[in-house]
Amino acid sequence: MSKVRVHISVSLDGYVAGPNQTQENPLGEGGEGLHDWVVSLKAWREAAGMDGGEENANSPVVRDEYANVGAEIMGRGKFGPATRGPWGDEPWQGWWGDDPPFRKPVFVLTHHQREPLTLADTTFTFVTDGPETALERAKHAAGDKDVFIGGGAETINQFLAAGLVDELELHVVPVVLGGGARLFAGVGPDLKLELLRTVEAPGVTHLKYRVVR
Amino acid sequence: MSKVRVHISVSLDGYVAGPNQTQENPLGEGGEGLHDWVVSLKAWREAAGMDGGEENANSPVVRDEYANVGAEIMGRGKFGPATRGPWGDEPWQGWWGDDPPFRKPVFVLTHHQREPLTLADTTFTFVTDGPETALERAKHAAGDKDVFIGGGAETINQFLAAGLVDELELHVVPVVLGGGARLFAGVGPDLKLELLRTVEAPGVTHLKYRVVR
Repeated sequence: MSKVRVHISVSLDGYVAGPNQTQENPLGEGGEGLHDWVVSLKAWREAAGMDGGEENANSPVVRDEYANVGAEIMGRGKFGPATRGPWGDEPWQGWWGDDPPFRKPVFVLTHHQREPLTLADTTFTFVTDGPETALERAKHAAGDKDVFIGGGAETINQFLAAGLVDELELHVVPVVLGGGARLFAGVGPDLKLELLRTVEAPGVTHLKYRVVR
Repeated sequence: MSKVRVHISVSLDGYVAGPNQTQENPLGEGGEGLHDWVVSLKAWREAAGMDGGEENANSPVVRDEYANVGAEIMGRGKFGPATRGPWGDEPWQGWWGDDPPFRKPVFVLTHHQREPLTLADTTFTFVTDGPETALERAKHAAGDKDVFIGGGAETINQFLAAGLVDELELHVVPVVLGGGARLFAGVGPDLKLELLRTVEAPGVTHLKYRVVR
């Protein structure tokens, strides 16, 4: 059955981005260190349309994460720009250039209406009426495949708190950020989880949980 | 060589005790759920002077944790009472009755002077001049053995922030507490860690790190 999945890199102190996120430094101070383990991988570079890269114990974890995803939901923070607000006359096209690496329908949660944006094989649809609606549309677009909740923290926390997530994988990175965007902020003890598996790999430990209902 | 070690159960959202800690509920709301995995173990029950208990993949982790500890440092919050403040005329003797399970020198960080307290095989020494002094005394008492930083969060965070810890083991429990005593509060990116090993076991995942200097 189609699942709603979260996979996210998180610091030991629970942040998915560092303090002081800006347009120049969208992951905040130290935030890039959360992704060192993944950007060197062939699996990641392939998906981003790049050559080369390593194979190691992280590779199957990342291939599993990317497999069978039919649609993605992201927050305005992930789509950008960092200033947010109304789109203006020359609206922001995302961080990813002319050929974004998603190549599937992407639903962007925003307070500001906008027509869909198609760049190469990716169409961004802007949803202004909340996470439940975005999820309904994403599930419809995904068909038998899964829906990936792509972040940032605020969006993931909203979906976790609303009980809309089926699987949550934490890529636990041994860095301490000391501040930033906190995973689980506003999520309470109603969220019940059960460990599915642990993978120890270079630079990161992967903990995958199922949400218990 | 003698090491300074932390081993602590932590919720997925980074708390080592739940919200609203009181004298009746010292672990806060939901906080007992952090310790379910350990209190059923023979290894834990033995150390607490109790019969029975299970053996499972958690047992060697707990035996390793308890082995070779020559002294413990704890904060006033762990020693109690929850009200803290001056000791008064009939001073609090700790939560553990006439035969506390430590059976080694314990150094209690407090702002209020007090003579040492011996209960069966455990002597509590009260230290009013800060973590460095407590550590010096604990190391001296431990000799060749390790010093265990027993908690709570405030004390552990103080030692982590001051760079005084050699090994940190997180027992990651799949509960969300939504608030409480936060591990890593006030600890910044100067703390560099390297994973030593991961153990997946019933009800918990053990992540052990070495502090890199």
